[in-house]
Amino acid sequence: MANMAPSPDAKPLTLALAGFGTVGSGLGHLLEENADQIRRRSGRSIRIKHILVRNLLKARQYAIPEGAMITRDPETLTDDPEVDVLVELIGGIEDAHDLVDRALDHDKHVVTANKALLAEAGDDLFLKAEQRNLILRYEASVAGAVPIVQALKESLAGNRIISLMGILNGTSNYILSEMTTAGIEFADALQQAQRLGYAEADPTLDIDGHDAAHKLALLIRLAFGVNYPCRSIFVRGIRDIASLDISFAREFNYRIKLIGQVREVRDESGVPHLEAGVFPALVQDTFLLARVGGAYNAVRLDANASGPMFFHGRGAGALPTAGAVLADILAIARGERPNNTGYVNGELPMASIVPSEEWRSRYYVRLTVQDKPGTLRDLAGCMAAEDVSVASMIQKSQIRNLSEGASGVPLVFMTHETSARAMANALMRMSDGGLLEEPAVFHRVL
Amino acid sequence: MANMAPSPDAKPLTLALAGFGTVGSGLGHLLEENADQIRRRSGRSIRIKHILVRNLLKARQYAIPEGAMITRDPETLTDDPEVDVLVELIGGIEDAHDLVDRALDHDKHVVTANKALLAEAGDDLFLKAEQRNLILRYEASVAGAVPIVQALKESLAGNRIISLMGILNGTSNYILSEMTTAGIEFADALQQAQRLGYAEADPTLDIDGHDAAHKLALLIRLAFGVNYPCRSIFVRGIRDIASLDISFAREFNYRIKLIGQVREVRDESGVPHLEAGVFPALVQDTFLLARVGGAYNAVRLDANASGPMFFHGRGAGALPTAGAVLADILAIARGERPNNTGYVNGELPMASIVPSEEWRSRYYVRLTVQDKPGTLRDLAGCMAAEDVSVASMIQKSQIRNLSEGASGVPLVFMTHETSARAMANALMRMSDGGLLEEPAVFHRVL
Repeated sequence: MANMAPSPDAKPLTLALAGFGTVGSGLGHLLEENADQIRRRSGRSIRIKHILVRNLLKARQYAIPEGAMITRDPETLTDDPEVDVLVELIGGIEDAHDLVDRALDHDKHVVTANKALLAEAGDDLFLKAEQRNLILRYEASVAGAVPIVQALKESLAGNRIISLMGILNGTSNYILSEMTTAGIEFADALQQAQRLGYAEADPTLDIDGHDAAHKLALLIRLAFGVNYPCRSIFVRGIRDIASLDISFAREFNYRIKLIGQVREVRDESGVPHLEAGVFPALVQDTFLLARVGGAYNAVRLDANASGPMFFHGRGAGALPTAGAVLADILAIARGERPNNTGYVNGELPMASIVPSEEWRSRYYVRLTVQDKPGTLRDLAGCMAAEDVSVASMIQKSQIRNLSEGASGVPLVFMTHETSARAMANALMRMSDGGLLEEPAVFHRVL
Repeated sequence: MANMAPSPDAKPLTLALAGFGTVGSGLGHLLEENADQIRRRSGRSIRIKHILVRNLLKARQYAIPEGAMITRDPETLTDDPEVDVLVELIGGIEDAHDLVDRALDHDKHVVTANKALLAEAGDDLFLKAEQRNLILRYEASVAGAVPIVQALKESLAGNRIISLMGILNGTSNYILSEMTTAGIEFADALQQAQRLGYAEADPTLDIDGHDAAHKLALLIRLAFGVNYPCRSIFVRGIRDIASLDISFAREFNYRIKLIGQVREVRDESGVPHLEAGVFPALVQDTFLLARVGGAYNAVRLDANASGPMFFHGRGAGALPTAGAVLADILAIARGERPNNTGYVNGELPMASIVPSEEWRSRYYVRLTVQDKPGTLRDLAGCMAAEDVSVASMIQKSQIRNLSEGASGVPLVFMTHETSARAMANALMRMSDGGLLEEPAVFHRVL
C-alpha cells in the first residue's frame, strides 16, 4: 500500500533543542506523553538529540528527555549532520539570530517561537530558508496555542483579508481583566500579575505593547503579504489606563482591551493602504473579543469570502506553546513542503502605510472641567471647530457620585467617527483655552 | 533562487467542477475576484475546465467562468486526463460517491464539501485515496468557513483531544436564536428561516440533528483517529423545544443550543471510551458557545497540551463555503502531500462507544404537576430513589405568572450530575405515580 506519510519504520526525526525553560521542557514532556499520537499522526518517532542550556546544573520543571545530551555550545546543535530540525526557544534577538542563521547554513529546518526575532530580523532568515528550500515555521510565536499562523497561511489562502484585530498579549489582558473584575488600579493589578507569574519582573515589553506589535508585524506579513516594519506600527500600552475609565466604559457597555489591529483602507482610486497599531480600545460587550479573559489570546478577522472569523485559546504557558511548536515539528516529520511566508516569492513588498494621525475611529473621551456656566458651550465650540461630534454622553448624575473631592467634574462622552488628528486638535484647543483641569483621557472605540 | 512552491509560470491547475449551485458559482466568482492573491499564494493560476450541471439552461447567481465548458455527463469530468482536481459540490450520497470514486480511479485529487458522503461512505474513499497517493480534502464539509478540519489534522496534531463540542448546524442555530431573541415558537421561527433561505423546504436533516451528526462523525475521526459510525451517534433535534423552556433557561442564565459533542471518558483501568451525540443543551451565558448567534457555527475543544480553544465563523453561504473549498484547492496547487485523515494509517480502528444511557450530565427539568400538598414530596421521592438530586430551582412566584390557564403548575429545576438512565427512570417513576399532568421536558446542561 502506498503511504500518505513516511512509513512507521521511517527513521526518527532528530531535533536539536535550543533552550530548556518552560516551553522547551514542556516540549520534552509532550513528546513522551503523546508519543503514540505522534507516531500515528506522522508515522515517525521524534527524538531530541541535543539540548542547549545556559546552566548545566539548573533544576528544571521536567527532566531532560532520555537520550538527549545537554551542552552549552550552540555549534553542537547546528553542525551535527544527524540533526534534522533546530528548535529555537532561547528568545531574544542576537544570539537567536546567529543560531537560526547557522542552522539554515547547515541545512536544518527551523521551528521557533521567537516573535521578536522574526519581527525584527525575519526578512533575511525567510529569504535564506527559501533559497535553501528549508522549512522555517513559527506557529507558537503568535497567540500561543491559537493556530492563527496556519489559518492565515493556508486556511484563508483563497481569501483577501480586510482587517484583523486581536488580543495578542496575555499579560496585558490579564491586568486589564483584573482591573475590570476586581476594580483595582493598574499598579496593583501588575503587582498581582507578577506575583502569579503572569508578568515578568521587567514587564515593559508586555505592558507597553511592544510584544503585541512584534506579533502584529508577523500577522500583517501573513495576512497581506507585505513588509510592515515593526517601528512603523503605532504603539500605545496600558500603563495609563485608569480603573475609572474602565468603569465609565462599562456604563456604555464596553470593555477596555489592549488591541493589535491592522486594516486595509482604499483611497479614492481604489489603491489599498494599511493602518496598523497596538493600543487600548473600547470593545463592545457583545463582541466575542470583549469576552476574552485572563491570560487568553484571540484573533478576529474579516476576509472577503469567509466573512468574520474568531479564534480563541491560551496565549502562553509551557504546554500550550509546546503544543504549537510540536505541530510545526510534525509538519516537518510528515514531509510537508516549505510554505514559510505563505507567498511564493518570500521577498515581500513594503506596505503602503497610512500615518496614524489619519486613522478614523470613534473615541471615548473623559475630560475634567470646571463646573461653571459656559464650559459645555466652549468645549462644544472646540470640537465643532475640528468637526468632531458627540454621539453619546454619560449622565451627569451618574458622574457626580464619582467625583467627590476632585477639583473639577468629569465629563465623559463618545464621539462619532473622526480622525486622530481632529481629535487631538480639538483636545488641544480645549487645553489652550484653559478649559481642562487635568489632561484629557481618550481611547479609540472599536 | 530555489522555490518554495511551483514557480509562477508552472502550468495552471485544472479543475473539474461538479455542481454549479451557490457554492460552485461562488467558487467561480472567487477564482476571478481573488486571482492575484491566488497566484501570489500558490504560484499557479487555477482554471475550471468542466462544470457538471443538471440543467444546461438554468439562470445562475454568477456567470459560467470564461473558458469553462458545461456538461451533463459526469465522465467528461472524471476521465479527462487534463483535469488535476475534481471538486464535488453536487451533494447527496449515491451519485456523489460514484463520481468521487471514479475520479480517484482516474488519479484525480478530490475536494468535496459533502459531509453526508464522507460520514456515510468515507471509509472506502479515504482508503482508495491513500492507496493511490491522492489528496482528498473536505475543509468545507464541517462548519463552513471555520478551518476546523485543518486545525484538528495539523495544528493540534501534537495534542490528545479530550473533548469537542460545537454548534454545527446554522439552520438550527438560527431558529433557536430567533426563538430566544424574538420569543417566538419553533414553528414560526422555522417558517421565518425558510422564508429567508436559511432553511430548506424539507428541513428534516437540519432540525432533526442528522446534518450535525454527519459533521460530528467527521470531527471524531479527525480528533480521535477512530471510526464512530454515524448511526451510533445519539441524535435528538430541536423540534420539541418550547419557547417557554428557552425563557426558563434564561432565568438560570443559560441559552439552549443544538450541540454536537464528543468526549473521552476513561474507565477504572484508564482505557479511553467515547461518547458522542447531537442534542439541544443548556449552555451557560458566559460561555463563548452561548454567544454564537444566527447562522454562525463554532467549535470548542479541549486538548491535553493546548487547553481549551474556540473557533467561530460563518457556517454556510456561497462565499464562505467556496473560500474553504478554495483553500483545499490551493493546498493541492502548492504540491502538499496527502494527509487526508490526519493519520498515517487511514484504516482507523472502531471507537469504543459508551451507551448514551450511561452518559453523565446535569439536567434541566420542567414538570407540569398538580398544585396540591404532597406533590413535591412525592416527586422528591422518585428522584431520591434514582439518586438524582436537585441543584437549583426557579422561584415559584416567577413561574405562576407563566402558568395562567394551564391545567397544572410548572416546576422547573436543575439537577446535579447524574446518568441519563437515572434521569429517565426518575421521570418514569413520576409518570407511573400519576404525578405529571404533561410529559416531562428535560435537556442536558453543558
